[in-house]
Amino acid sequence: MIISMRPHAPKHEVEHVCERIHEFGFRVHSIVGEERVVIGVVGTGGDVTSCLESLEATPGVERAVRITAPYKFVSKEFRKERTVITVGKAAIGGNEFVTMAGPCSVENEKQIMETAYAVAEGGAKILRGGAFKPRTSPYDFQGMEGEGLKLLAKAREATGLAIVTEVMSDRDVELVAEYADIMQVGARNMQNFAMLKVLGKCGRPVMLKRGLSATIKELLMSAEYIVAHGNPNVMLCERGIRTFETATRNTCDISAVPVLNELTHLPVIIDPSHAVGKRSLVPAICKAAVAVGADGMIVEVHPCPEKAVSDGAQSLTIEGFHAMMKQLQGYLALWASERTA
Amino acid sequence: MIISMRPHAPKHEVEHVCERIHEFGFRVHSIVGEERVVIGVVGTGGDVTSCLESLEATPGVERAVRITAPYKFVSKEFRKERTVITVGKAAIGGNEFVTMAGPCSVENEKQIMETAYAVAEGGAKILRGGAFKPRTSPYDFQGMEGEGLKLLAKAREATGLAIVTEVMSDRDVELVAEYADIMQVGARNMQNFAMLKVLGKCGRPVMLKRGLSATIKELLMSAEYIVAHGNPNVMLCERGIRTFETATRNTCDISAVPVLNELTHLPVIIDPSHAVGKRSLVPAICKAAVAVGADGMIVEVHPCPEKAVSDGAQSLTIEGFHAMMKQLQGYLALWASERTA
Amino acid sequence: MIISMRPHAPKHEVEHVCERIHEFGFRVHSIVGEERVVIGVVGTGGDVTSCLESLEATPGVERAVRITAPYKFVSKEFRKERTVITVGKAAIGGNEFVTMAGPCSVENEKQIMETAYAVAEGGAKILRGGAFKPRTSPYDFQGMEGEGLKLLAKAREATGLAIVTEVMSDRDVELVAEYADIMQVGARNMQNFAMLKVLGKCGRPVMLKRGLSATIKELLMSAEYIVAHGNPNVMLCERGIRTFETATRNTCDISAVPVLNELTHLPVIIDPSHAVGKRSLVPAICKAAVAVGADGMIVEVHPCPEKAVSDGAQSLTIEGFHAMMKQLQGYLALWASERTA
Amino acid sequence: MIISMRPHAPKHEVEHVCERIHEFGFRVHSIVGEERVVIGVVGTGGDVTSCLESLEATPGVERAVRITAPYKFVSKEFRKERTVITVGKAAIGGNEFVTMAGPCSVENEKQIMETAYAVAEGGAKILRGGAFKPRTSPYDFQGMEGEGLKLLAKAREATGLAIVTEVMSDRDVELVAEYADIMQVGARNMQNFAMLKVLGKCGRPVMLKRGLSATIKELLMSAEYIVAHGNPNVMLCERGIRTFETATRNTCDISAVPVLNELTHLPVIIDPSHAVGKRSLVPAICKAAVAVGADGMIVEVHPCPEKAVSDGAQSLTIEGFHAMMKQLQGYLALWASERTA
Repeated sequence: MIISMRPHAPKHEVEHVCERIHEFGFRVHSIVGEERVVIGVVGTGGDVTSCLESLEATPGVERAVRITAPYKFVSKEFRKERTVITVGKAAIGGNEFVTMAGPCSVENEKQIMETAYAVAEGGAKILRGGAFKPRTSPYDFQGMEGEGLKLLAKAREATGLAIVTEVMSDRDVELVAEYADIMQVGARNMQNFAMLKVLGKCGRPVMLKRGLSATIKELLMSAEYIVAHGNPNVMLCERGIRTFETATRNTCDISAVPVLNELTHLPVIIDPSHAVGKRSLVPAICKAAVAVGADGMIVEVHPCPEKAVSDGAQSLTIEGFHAMMKQLQGYLALWASERTA
Repeated sequence: MIISMRPHAPKHEVEHVCERIHEFGFRVHSIVGEERVVIGVVGTGGDVTSCLESLEATPGVERAVRITAPYKFVSKEFRKERTVITVGKAAIGGNEFVTMAGPCSVENEKQIMETAYAVAEGGAKILRGGAFKPRTSPYDFQGMEGEGLKLLAKAREATGLAIVTEVMSDRDVELVAEYADIMQVGARNMQNFAMLKVLGKCGRPVMLKRGLSATIKELLMSAEYIVAHGNPNVMLCERGIRTFETATRNTCDISAVPVLNELTHLPVIIDPSHAVGKRSLVPAICKAAVAVGADGMIVEVHPCPEKAVSDGAQSLTIEGFHAMMKQLQGYLALWASERTA
Repeated sequence: MIISMRPHAPKHEVEHVCERIHEFGFRVHSIVGEERVVIGVVGTGGDVTSCLESLEATPGVERAVRITAPYKFVSKEFRKERTVITVGKAAIGGNEFVTMAGPCSVENEKQIMETAYAVAEGGAKILRGGAFKPRTSPYDFQGMEGEGLKLLAKAREATGLAIVTEVMSDRDVELVAEYADIMQVGARNMQNFAMLKVLGKCGRPVMLKRGLSATIKELLMSAEYIVAHGNPNVMLCERGIRTFETATRNTCDISAVPVLNELTHLPVIIDPSHAVGKRSLVPAICKAAVAVGADGMIVEVHPCPEKAVSDGAQSLTIEGFHAMMKQLQGYLALWASERTA
Repeated sequence: MIISMRPHAPKHEVEHVCERIHEFGFRVHSIVGEERVVIGVVGTGGDVTSCLESLEATPGVERAVRITAPYKFVSKEFRKERTVITVGKAAIGGNEFVTMAGPCSVENEKQIMETAYAVAEGGAKILRGGAFKPRTSPYDFQGMEGEGLKLLAKAREATGLAIVTEVMSDRDVELVAEYADIMQVGARNMQNFAMLKVLGKCGRPVMLKRGLSATIKELLMSAEYIVAHGNPNVMLCERGIRTFETATRNTCDISAVPVLNELTHLPVIIDPSHAVGKRSLVPAICKAAVAVGADGMIVEVHPCPEKAVSDGAQSLTIEGFHAMMKQLQGYLALWASERTA
């Protein structure tokens, strides 16, 4: 169950509700928002139906909803309308398909500025770029860290693009949140629960990437961590799962988009670059992302992919990105007409 | 290497070429077509470059091509133009996206006739329907077999639709080929090599479904079996692969389409019904199939899915199929303009 | 439910039982053995409890058992005692761990005879060797076929070893059954249902290999096909499953052995050679096979692995096989004491 | 390459070596130990052979080794002898198979003390117990945290067992290191690179669990992070990988043990409880762990599994643990004789 209190319900009413919940044998997980308190009723203890009926009649309660899914706040049972996350000029989850683009890693000022201008021109609303880089080998480039964040901020100022960048440790959340418009959680950290809890309090939207072998349910449970700790602005990202197939870097689970659209109100982003790992395959997957109804995509673009310090093979050139964005026009028109139908 | 002889090259020229190949330490795999003989040069024995040069100058040889992929005849290195397979009113691999639709199993005359008329009306060119059914349990319905084939033929006569139906044993190839326009090889038989060899001589186009955990390379090698045994008319079908995810019946490997389009000239069909296993997800995957440039799709449709003897959960209703075909209009227009660009 | 009739129950009693079953809304799947008829009651129609009670009281019925698993005859619910399959000097499923060994492919008389003598000396009771070879590529060696079978028979005569060899098509079942003591179904044919049905009538024990991505339940369902079509002598073989890991050829699912031992009375064999695909890893997996309580193992051995036409990398040398069999002594003693405890 | 300097080589010699490395176009990754400095030479820049020859002749250099694997310090190319990690009374990697046992979560004093005494009696040398719990759901028990650590310390004092417990965030490393003898990195954090770096400086041995879908190479790369940041005492733990099979919680990749034994000098531990997820299957996998040559195992034991707050289904009872340890005797004797052979 989730109990939404009336806006600005007084403290004693909230406390009374919590007492009632405890009396029914459940535990309380409350989120104190600016306007209202929302209370998650968790545990397997008591009689759900009686508890629900009782709470509906308790002073201060606006709405009490029974939720059968193991994820509560992110479930469509809790909220039917799409969550729209406004970041810079983009409304993710809204009536426009949002393109995020940029290099895998921030490498230097020239590279990030050149790419930022180019992707903005191509229609992107959000600039991607890694300052903290999760690398399989300790001997590979680990990112420009703080310096990289500053360059991203500079690119934002120059182009008006919002910034999405990865955070890799709960200790860096504060620092990254100073610069980023969207905090990216990488696939390898999808179940870094300590960090997810901190992100619940970071005050920035979060893009949560699906783990390499995470089920859709696990992805939603990880999103629930962030929301249940106070941050409702979470978008999910399908970036390919690990399978036996080696022709592509990962296997793009395109069905994850319609599945998620049935289960959750959170926006869903596709990352075709990591899903397939090969430049020439990216445009086809971008079209598919639009066709299945994703809310946006995040694409790697580099001014000179063969010199990129990471992920060169899957990065589009600037020309490639512009050509692809042109090819997408027709698909985006269909997307928009379906979304607003 | 593959050596194409000139049309109607005399036997002694062919024999001479084969002798030369043996002299270079290779083995010969020849296909005698109606017009010309094509010779696959296989084995790891000799000096490829010298052999190629020598053969190019040998009388009767029209073209000698070096092929680095382990699959030869199905490789794009051998043939750049798309293979177009004409079946009834459909040209699979050509300038029209081809829809195949129908029930999982042929159940009775009323069911198959009703479905056939309905899918034809919706725009399908080919009727699917299983007469021989591969079922996990020996106690499940095993198909109407011969009777089912006769009903399919009746439906063809009535509607003008071509027929695609599964063959499960090399012993049934002849019987099925009497009725079917396209011989379907199910996922569980993708590496039933004995049957693939027989299908090389069956005189009918073959739709080869990807095995549950077959790599793209293995799919192409199985297609090579059929082509190397004399049948160039093979289409490939992505029907979802087996992964850890349980939210869908299988995981639709949508990237397989652009990957195959880079590697082979054979047409590629998507089977969204088996890929996702759930009716409500099928239309999104059909759109994705069109968007990524598949040559067609095969969709399960049943007049009354809840009463279907098999695969009811993933079958569209007739109304659902018609609604989806309407939604696809815009995507199909984009497909056609890209294909003919 | 499964109904065992009394030995030599007259035909009219059997018919009467079947009628009763139909009256309760179920279907009948009967196996006519030499001694007795066993009737599988399948379908979801009727009231199981009443049917069971009624049948228990019906003349001619010896035993009526309710079976909740989807596989019936192979389930431990149907039969608690292990199935013991006697082949030559080996009793598979009995009180001795059975070693099957030999080359991947039969290549020539010298090779198979030399290997046969050597593995017999090392303690093997059964000789493996492929005459029909399922190869990914149509251009690879496809096996010596009939000639290979004759050589295997010769090796049996010379050494007293029984023979296990693969059958790849329902059309070859009769031929292979003439020579083989155990009919091997390869992983790629685990769900070649047409062939499984024929193997139900072949009169020889069958070793059914688990498919590359078959679940344990599917493996049991495929075994059920063979048993339900009349052949109770089926042994199961774990030969590694396909996963994302590439350090080994497949991933040896060692837990499959204790899982199967809980679910079925059929013997379980491990194939370490295909599971790991690398010679140096084979002995460790053989020890594990003994330790987890498998009934036997099937190991590839070749007099000169680097010249083997197939699977050289995973074949033990003769010396390697002898050394390993020595190392296994202690483990085999523990196995025997646990089995007879 | 890895360059080991002579013990107590003066700073100027180390600097000189680093300069030479830079001249050859490589980067330096040095570890300053108490006795000696070890320098990893990384990057793809220069001529490896010349650099190696030159460094061998440079003052202060004791040994220069070329290492072809992407992991350097953990590779067998760098060090042939097994790493032995001494913790309390156990020498992990040495001549005794080490058993770690205890509950999934520390729940209260009575539970952990009772279990500690019982597993010590059964032969365990190390007590496991989670104080910080990574749970899929934010609403599940998250561990007793600091209180749990104190209870573990109390159990150590009472029983003499060493303690292994999980750390989930780089911020908690210091706290956990105060109490734990071995720092456990859970599967979900195997690629939490920020935490791995901190663990390189934590002064405690680390048990690194393989990620749910991590390859063996990735596991070794994560171990390399810890070692390259200063901590040579890392043990690896195979705890089952995620596959399509659902009969077990995960799939125990038993071959990972011999594979790792070929590639690395680090000890390898098996976690049968998480691998199979079902109590009745645990003993068989423990036997297999011993048989394949693992250095130890970590097993879940609970005084009352049906009341456990987590992982009850896979926890052995105390009686079950004792019975299993008895059954293992014979296998452990074989292990010891092979290890010291």
